[in-house]
Amino acid sequence: MPVLTTYTTKIIPDWVDYNDHLRDAFYLLIFSYATDALMDILGLTSENRDASGHSLFTLELHLNYLHEVKLGAQVEVHTQVIAHDHKRLHLYHSLHLVGAGQELAGNEQMLLHVDLAGPRSAPFSAAVFAQLTAIADQQADLPRPPLLGRVIGLPGR
Amino acid sequence: MPVLTTYTTKIIPDWVDYNDHLRDAFYLLIFSYATDALMDILGLTSENRDASGHSLFTLELHLNYLHEVKLGAQVEVHTQVIAHDHKRLHLYHSLHLVGAGQELAGNEQMLLHVDLAGPRSAPFSAAVFAQLTAIADQQADLPRPPLLGRVIGLPGR
Repeated sequence: MPVLTTYTTKIIPDWVDYNDHLRDAFYLLIFSYATDALMDILGLTSENRDASGHSLFTLELHLNYLHEVKLGAQVEVHTQVIAHDHKRLHLYHSLHLVGAGQELAGNEQMLLHVDLAGPRSAPFSAAVFAQLTAIADQQADLPRPPLLGRVIGLPGR
Repeated sequence: MPVLTTYTTKIIPDWVDYNDHLRDAFYLLIFSYATDALMDILGLTSENRDASGHSLFTLELHLNYLHEVKLGAQVEVHTQVIAHDHKRLHLYHSLHLVGAGQELAGNEQMLLHVDLAGPRSAPFSAAVFAQLTAIADQQADLPRPPLLGRVIGLPGR
Protein backbone atom coordinates (compact mmCIF):
# COMPACT_ATOMS: atom_id res chain seq x y z
CA MET A 1 0.00 0.00 0.00
CA PRO A 2 -0.98 2.73 -0.66
CA VAL A 3 -1.19 1.33 -4.22
CA LEU A 4 -3.18 -1.88 -3.93
CA THR A 5 -2.62 -4.40 -6.75
CA THR A 6 -5.79 -6.50 -6.62
CA TYR A 7 -5.59 -8.62 -9.76
CA THR A 8 -3.04 -9.87 -12.29
CA THR A 9 -3.78 -11.86 -15.44
CA LYS A 10 -2.62 -12.69 -18.95
CA ILE A 11 -4.88 -11.65 -21.86
CA ILE A 12 -6.36 -14.91 -23.21
CA PRO A 13 -7.74 -15.70 -26.70
CA ASP A 14 -11.38 -15.71 -25.46
CA TRP A 15 -11.09 -11.99 -24.67
CA VAL A 16 -9.78 -10.54 -27.94
CA ASP A 17 -11.38 -9.52 -31.25
CA TYR A 18 -10.44 -10.58 -34.79
CA ASN A 19 -7.55 -8.12 -34.54
CA ASP A 20 -6.13 -9.67 -31.31
CA HIS A 21 -7.11 -6.61 -29.25
CA LEU A 22 -8.89 -6.90 -25.90
CA ARG A 23 -12.66 -6.35 -26.42
CA ASP A 24 -14.28 -3.56 -24.37
CA ALA A 25 -16.40 -5.93 -22.25
CA PHE A 26 -13.36 -7.97 -21.23
CA TYR A 27 -11.57 -4.93 -19.81
CA LEU A 28 -14.58 -4.85 -17.48
CA LEU A 29 -14.36 -8.58 -16.75
CA ILE A 30 -10.79 -8.01 -15.54
CA PHE A 31 -11.95 -5.08 -13.38
CA SER A 32 -14.83 -7.24 -12.11
CA TYR A 33 -12.34 -9.91 -11.01
CA ALA A 34 -10.38 -7.14 -9.27
CA THR A 35 -13.52 -6.21 -7.33
CA ASP A 36 -13.91 -9.89 -6.36
CA ALA A 37 -10.32 -9.82 -5.10
CA LEU A 38 -11.02 -6.68 -3.07
CA MET A 39 -14.04 -8.45 -1.56
CA ASP A 40 -11.69 -11.21 -0.41
CA ILE A 41 -9.37 -8.60 1.15
CA LEU A 42 -12.37 -7.08 2.94
CA GLY A 43 -13.44 -10.45 4.31
CA LEU A 44 -16.34 -10.82 1.89
CA THR A 45 -15.01 -14.10 0.50
CA SER A 46 -17.14 -16.64 -1.31
CA GLU A 47 -17.25 -18.76 1.83
CA ASN A 48 -18.36 -15.78 3.87
CA ARG A 49 -20.92 -14.83 1.24
CA ASP A 50 -22.38 -18.30 1.60
CA ALA A 51 -22.18 -18.19 5.38
CA SER A 52 -23.38 -14.62 5.86
CA GLY A 53 -25.65 -14.32 2.84
CA HIS A 54 -24.12 -10.94 1.91
CA SER A 55 -22.37 -9.68 -1.19
CA LEU A 56 -21.51 -6.53 -3.17
CA PHE A 57 -23.70 -5.57 -6.12
CA THR A 58 -22.51 -3.19 -8.84
CA LEU A 59 -24.90 -0.23 -9.05
CA GLU A 60 -23.14 1.91 -11.62
CA LEU A 61 -19.80 2.26 -13.36
CA HIS A 62 -17.83 4.42 -15.78
CA LEU A 63 -15.05 3.16 -18.01
CA ASN A 64 -12.39 5.03 -20.00
CA TYR A 65 -10.41 3.19 -22.68
CA LEU A 66 -7.01 4.85 -23.08
CA HIS A 67 -4.83 2.31 -24.90
CA GLU A 68 -5.25 -0.98 -26.70
CA VAL A 69 -4.25 -4.18 -24.94
CA LYS A 70 -3.08 -7.16 -26.98
CA LEU A 71 -3.40 -10.92 -26.74
CA GLY A 72 -0.83 -12.40 -24.39
CA ALA A 73 -0.11 -9.17 -22.49
CA GLN A 74 0.44 -9.51 -18.73
CA VAL A 75 -1.66 -6.91 -16.95
CA GLU A 76 -2.45 -5.86 -13.40
CA VAL A 77 -5.19 -3.82 -11.74
CA HIS A 78 -4.50 -1.11 -9.13
CA THR A 79 -7.43 -0.27 -6.85
CA GLN A 80 -8.13 2.92 -4.89
CA VAL A 81 -10.97 3.39 -2.41
CA ILE A 82 -12.47 6.79 -3.25
CA ALA A 83 -15.23 6.94 -0.62
CA HIS A 84 -17.49 4.71 1.44
CA ASP A 85 -20.36 4.86 3.85
CA HIS A 86 -22.08 2.19 5.95
CA LYS A 87 -23.32 0.25 2.91
CA ARG A 88 -21.76 1.74 -0.23
CA LEU A 89 -18.26 1.63 -1.73
CA HIS A 90 -16.98 4.02 -4.41
CA LEU A 91 -13.73 2.80 -5.94
CA TYR A 92 -11.41 3.31 -8.89
CA HIS A 93 -9.54 0.57 -10.75
CA SER A 94 -6.76 1.24 -13.27
CA LEU A 95 -5.28 -1.27 -15.72
CA HIS A 96 -1.52 -1.45 -16.40
CA LEU A 97 1.01 -3.74 -18.01
CA VAL A 98 2.68 -5.55 -15.12
CA GLY A 99 5.25 -3.23 -13.57
CA ALA A 100 4.41 -0.27 -15.83
CA GLY A 101 3.05 3.08 -14.72
CA GLN A 102 1.01 3.94 -17.83
CA GLU A 103 -2.77 3.63 -17.35
CA LEU A 104 -4.38 1.57 -20.13
CA ALA A 105 -7.95 1.99 -18.87
CA GLY A 106 -9.73 3.36 -15.82
CA ASN A 107 -12.95 2.13 -14.20
CA GLU A 108 -14.97 3.96 -11.54
CA GLN A 109 -17.47 1.74 -9.71
CA MET A 110 -20.23 2.29 -7.14
CA LEU A 111 -21.02 -0.89 -5.21
CA LEU A 112 -23.80 -1.67 -2.73
CA HIS A 113 -23.60 -4.16 0.15
CA VAL A 114 -26.59 -6.47 -0.16
CA ASP A 115 -28.33 -9.06 1.99
CA LEU A 116 -28.98 -11.82 -0.54
CA ALA A 117 -32.06 -13.00 1.36
CA GLY A 118 -34.00 -9.97 0.07
CA PRO A 119 -32.11 -9.07 -1.92
CA ARG A 120 -31.96 -5.71 -0.10
CA SER A 121 -29.25 -3.26 0.86
CA ALA A 122 -27.65 -3.90 4.26
CA PRO A 123 -24.90 -2.27 6.36
CA PHE A 124 -21.38 -3.71 6.27
CA SER A 125 -20.46 -5.85 9.30
CA ALA A 126 -18.22 -4.09 11.83
CA ALA A 127 -15.22 -6.19 10.73
CA VAL A 128 -15.68 -5.42 7.02
CA PHE A 129 -16.29 -1.73 7.70
CA ALA A 130 -13.11 -1.55 9.83
CA GLN A 131 -11.04 -3.18 7.06
CA LEU A 132 -12.53 -0.85 4.45
CA THR A 133 -11.79 2.19 6.61
CA ALA A 134 -8.22 0.98 7.19
CA ILE A 135 -7.59 0.75 3.43
CA ALA A 136 -9.16 4.17 2.85
CA ASP A 137 -6.94 5.67 5.58
CA GLN A 138 -3.81 4.08 4.08
CA GLN A 139 -4.74 5.56 0.68
CA ALA A 140 -5.78 9.00 1.96
CA ASP A 141 -2.72 10.71 0.44
CA LEU A 142 -3.10 9.20 -3.04
CA PRO A 143 -4.00 11.79 -5.69
CA ARG A 144 -7.59 11.79 -6.96
CA PRO A 145 -7.71 9.93 -10.31
CA PRO A 146 -8.09 12.56 -13.07
CA LEU A 147 -10.82 10.57 -14.88
CA LEU A 148 -13.14 10.50 -11.85
CA GLY A 149 -16.59 12.05 -12.27
CA ARG A 150 -16.56 12.37 -16.05
CA VAL A 151 -19.69 13.06 -18.11
CA ILE A 152 -19.89 11.61 -21.64
CA GLY A 153 -20.49 14.03 -24.51
CA LEU A 154 -19.26 15.12 -27.93
CA PRO A 155 -16.47 17.73 -27.76
CA GLY A 156 -17.75 21.28 -28.07
CA ARG A 157 -21.35 20.57 -27.02
CA MET B 1 -38.06 2.43 -35.77
CA PRO B 2 -37.86 4.75 -33.89
CA VAL B 3 -37.01 2.06 -31.31
CA LEU B 4 -34.20 0.04 -32.83
CA THR B 5 -33.79 -3.50 -31.43
CA THR B 6 -30.18 -4.29 -32.24
CA TYR B 7 -29.53 -7.54 -30.37
CA THR B 8 -31.42 -10.45 -28.82
CA THR B 9 -29.93 -13.30 -26.81
CA LYS B 10 -30.56 -15.87 -24.09
CA ILE B 11 -28.50 -15.60 -20.88
CA ILE B 12 -26.06 -18.54 -20.99
CA PRO B 13 -24.26 -20.33 -18.11
CA ASP B 14 -20.87 -18.74 -18.98
CA TRP B 15 -22.27 -15.31 -18.09
CA VAL B 16 -23.75 -15.88 -14.61
CA ASP B 17 -22.28 -16.00 -11.09
CA TYR B 18 -22.63 -18.72 -8.44
CA ASN B 19 -26.12 -17.35 -7.78
CA ASP B 20 -27.24 -17.68 -11.46
CA HIS B 21 -27.34 -13.90 -11.91
CA LEU B 22 -25.78 -12.16 -14.90
CA ARG B 23 -22.30 -10.81 -13.94
CA ASP B 24 -21.71 -7.06 -14.45
CA ALA B 25 -19.14 -7.54 -17.25
CA PHE B 26 -21.53 -9.73 -19.26
CA TYR B 27 -24.21 -7.04 -19.33
CA LEU B 28 -21.52 -5.08 -21.16
CA LEU B 29 -20.69 -7.99 -23.47
CA ILE B 30 -24.35 -8.03 -24.55
CA PHE B 31 -24.25 -4.25 -25.13
CA SER B 32 -20.95 -4.69 -27.02
CA TYR B 33 -22.63 -7.21 -29.35
CA ALA B 34 -25.44 -4.67 -29.83
CA THR B 35 -22.83 -2.12 -30.95
CA ASP B 36 -21.46 -4.72 -33.41
CA ALA B 37 -24.99 -5.15 -34.76
CA LEU B 38 -25.38 -1.39 -35.15
CA MET B 39 -22.09 -1.36 -37.07
CA ASP B 40 -23.61 -3.89 -39.46
CA ILE B 41 -26.68 -1.65 -39.88
CA LEU B 42 -24.38 1.29 -40.63
CA GLY B 43 -22.48 -0.68 -43.25
CA LEU B 44 -19.42 -1.21 -41.04
CA THR B 45 -19.65 -5.00 -41.32
CA SER B 46 -16.75 -7.33 -40.67
CA GLU B 47 -16.24 -7.75 -44.40
CA ASN B 48 -16.19 -3.99 -44.86
CA ARG B 49 -13.84 -3.59 -41.91
CA ASP B 50 -11.44 -5.96 -43.64
CA ALA B 51 -11.93 -4.25 -46.97
CA SER B 52 -11.88 -0.66 -45.78
CA GLY B 53 -9.60 -1.04 -42.77
CA HIS B 54 -11.98 0.98 -40.58
CA SER B 55 -13.81 0.17 -37.36
CA LEU B 56 -15.42 1.76 -34.28
CA PHE B 57 -13.41 1.92 -31.05
CA THR B 58 -15.03 2.42 -27.65
CA LEU B 59 -13.60 5.54 -26.02
CA GLU B 60 -15.73 5.73 -22.89
CA LEU B 61 -18.91 4.29 -21.41
CA HIS B 62 -21.23 4.51 -18.42
CA LEU B 63 -23.37 1.64 -17.17
CA ASN B 64 -26.32 1.61 -14.74
CA TYR B 65 -27.49 -1.71 -13.29
CA LEU B 66 -31.19 -1.46 -12.43
CA HIS B 67 -32.43 -5.05 -12.06
CA GLU B 68 -30.94 -8.51 -11.85
CA VAL B 69 -31.06 -10.78 -14.90
CA LYS B 70 -31.18 -14.54 -14.44
CA LEU B 71 -29.79 -17.55 -16.29
CA GLY B 72 -31.99 -18.53 -19.22
CA ALA B 73 -33.73 -15.15 -19.56
CA GLN B 74 -34.41 -13.97 -23.11
CA VAL B 75 -33.28 -10.37 -23.45
CA GLU B 76 -33.08 -7.68 -26.11
CA VAL B 77 -31.17 -4.43 -26.52
CA HIS B 78 -32.79 -1.18 -27.72
CA THR B 79 -30.41 1.38 -29.20
CA GLN B 80 -30.80 5.15 -29.51
CA VAL B 81 -28.40 7.46 -31.34
CA ILE B 82 -27.89 10.43 -29.00
CA ALA B 83 -25.50 12.51 -31.10
CA HIS B 84 -22.84 12.17 -33.75
CA ASP B 85 -20.30 14.19 -35.68
CA HIS B 86 -18.03 13.33 -38.60
CA LYS B 87 -16.08 10.73 -36.64
CA ARG B 88 -17.79 10.16 -33.27
CA LEU B 89 -20.98 8.40 -32.23
CA HIS B 90 -22.71 8.88 -28.86
CA LEU B 91 -25.36 6.21 -28.25
CA TYR B 92 -27.51 4.70 -25.52
CA HIS B 93 -28.37 1.00 -25.19
CA SER B 94 -31.05 -0.32 -22.82
CA LEU B 95 -31.56 -3.97 -21.83
CA HIS B 96 -35.05 -5.52 -21.55
CA LEU B 97 -36.69 -8.91 -21.28
CA VAL B 98 -37.95 -9.67 -24.79
CA GLY B 99 -41.17 -7.75 -25.36
CA ALA B 100 -41.09 -6.00 -21.95
CA GLY B 101 -40.83 -2.25 -21.41
CA GLN B 102 -38.94 -2.30 -18.10
CA GLU B 103 -35.29 -1.24 -18.40
CA LEU B 104 -32.95 -3.74 -16.69
CA ALA B 105 -29.75 -1.79 -17.39
CA GLY B 106 -28.65 1.24 -19.41
CA ASN B 107 -25.35 1.82 -21.18
CA GLU B 108 -24.13 5.12 -22.62
CA GLN B 109 -21.22 4.77 -25.07
CA MET B 110 -18.91 7.16 -26.92
CA LEU B 111 -17.37 5.53 -30.01
CA LEU B 112 -14.67 6.74 -32.39
CA HIS B 113 -14.33 5.84 -36.06
CA VAL B 114 -10.78 4.59 -36.59
CA ASP B 115 -8.51 3.82 -39.53
CA LEU B 116 -6.92 0.57 -38.41
CA ALA B 117 -3.77 1.30 -40.42
CA GLY B 118 -2.71 3.88 -37.80
CA PRO B 119 -4.65 3.23 -35.77
CA ARG B 120 -5.87 6.85 -35.92
CA SER B 121 -9.26 8.55 -35.92
CA ALA B 122 -10.82 9.02 -39.36
CA PRO B 123 -14.06 10.53 -40.72
CA PHE B 124 -17.00 8.24 -41.52
CA SER B 125 -17.46 7.47 -45.22
CA ALA B 126 -20.27 9.43 -46.88
CA ALA B 127 -22.45 6.29 -47.02
CA VAL B 128 -21.99 5.46 -43.33
CA PHE B 129 -22.53 9.08 -42.29
CA ALA B 130 -25.75 9.23 -44.34
CA GLN B 131 -27.07 6.03 -42.72
CA LEU B 132 -26.15 7.31 -39.25
CA THR B 133 -27.88 10.63 -39.91
CA ALA B 134 -30.98 8.80 -41.21
CA ILE B 135 -31.24 6.79 -37.97
CA ALA B 136 -30.71 9.90 -35.85
CA ASP B 137 -33.45 11.71 -37.79
CA GLN B 138 -35.88 8.80 -37.36
CA GLN B 139 -35.19 8.85 -33.60
CA ALA B 140 -35.29 12.63 -33.17
CA ASP B 141 -38.61 12.52 -31.27
CA LEU B 142 -37.56 9.83 -28.78
CA PRO B 143 -37.28 11.15 -25.22
CA ARG B 144 -33.77 11.65 -23.83
CA PRO B 145 -32.88 8.64 -21.64
CA PRO B 146 -33.10 9.78 -17.98
CA LEU B 147 -29.78 8.09 -17.03
CA LEU B 148 -27.76 10.02 -19.62
CA GLY B 149 -24.89 12.17 -18.33
CA ARG B 150 -24.76 10.78 -14.79
CA VAL B 151 -21.83 11.37 -12.43
CA ILE B 152 -20.99 8.66 -9.89
CA GLY B 153 -20.92 9.65 -6.22
CA LEU B 154 -22.17 8.72 -2.77
CA PRO B 155 -25.60 10.22 -1.97
CA GLY B 156 -25.40 13.48 -0.06
CA ARG B 157 -21.83 14.35 -1.08
